Amino acid sequence: EETLDSVMKSLKELLSYHDGRRSTMTKTLSCTSVKAMGTLSSCPSGMTVTGCSCGFACGSWNVQNENVCHCLCPVIDWTVARCCKLA
Amino acid sequence: EETLDSVMKSLKELLSYHDGRRSTMTKTLSCTSVKAMGTLSSCPSGMTVTGCSCGFACGSWNVQNENVCHCLCPVIDWTVARCCKLA
Amino acid sequence: EETLDSVMKSLKELLSYHDGRRSTMTKTLSCTSVKAMGTLSSCPSGMTVTGCSCGFACGSWNVQNENVCHCLCPVIDWTVARCCKLA
Repeated sequence: EETLDSVMKSLKELLSYHDGRRSTMTKTLSCTSVKAMGTLSSCPSGMTVTGCSCGFACGSWNVQNENVCHCLCPVIDWTVARCCKLA
Repeated sequence: EETLDSVMKSLKELLSYHDGRRSTMTKTLSCTSVKAMGTLSSCPSGMTVTGCSCGFACGSWNVQNENVCHCLCPVIDWTVARCCKLA
Repeated sequence: EETLDSVMKSLKELLSYHDGRRSTMTKTLSCTSVKAMGTLSSCPSGMTVTGCSCGFACGSWNVQNENVCHCLCPVIDWTVARCCKLA
């Protein structure tokens, strides 16, 4: 039942997938920093927190919902979220 | 020597690879936090440390074996490892 | 106009692409730490900062040019950059 036409159809489908994959082949790790006043700083949509930096020398923080840095010291003036994604 | 049969064989092999690749196409950066009491906190198998958070405001840490956070201040009550992988 | 020859040509092109993609399929997140004296520490070429650690318990830092950790406290003896890439 397989004809040259059906083969070509599958082949074209594969080639169209391939174009989508080409972007995958060149994916790299892309990161940025987001600074905010106060104890919370959020990553842009689609990015996840890999680390946080806090004002007043504070090194205690946690991550909320995988995309928000929360600095935990009693006095904090600013919070930086380090945010990464594949791009 | 190439027949429609041999073409179809190659094509089917490609399609089966393609199914494997589909998961690659949708890979994203996936991160989680692991908190432990004391000065050490370990990432789950297959994940690597991207940053660490320490109790008592401490911002001094190193990474052991790429998957363990080690907080370096004299007094530490808890350690958080920020752990990531492709998934 | 499509012949078995033209189909095979496309198929071979696809297979050669596929070999390139195979490396993509096995990509993982690869990280390392770079320690330097002073307030700055740089990632190797091709890697990006995901977090920083600073001497003297300091948890305040920023990232310059996506690949340099800069510790911000007045007195800093060492800086560690946590650096990652896809590999």
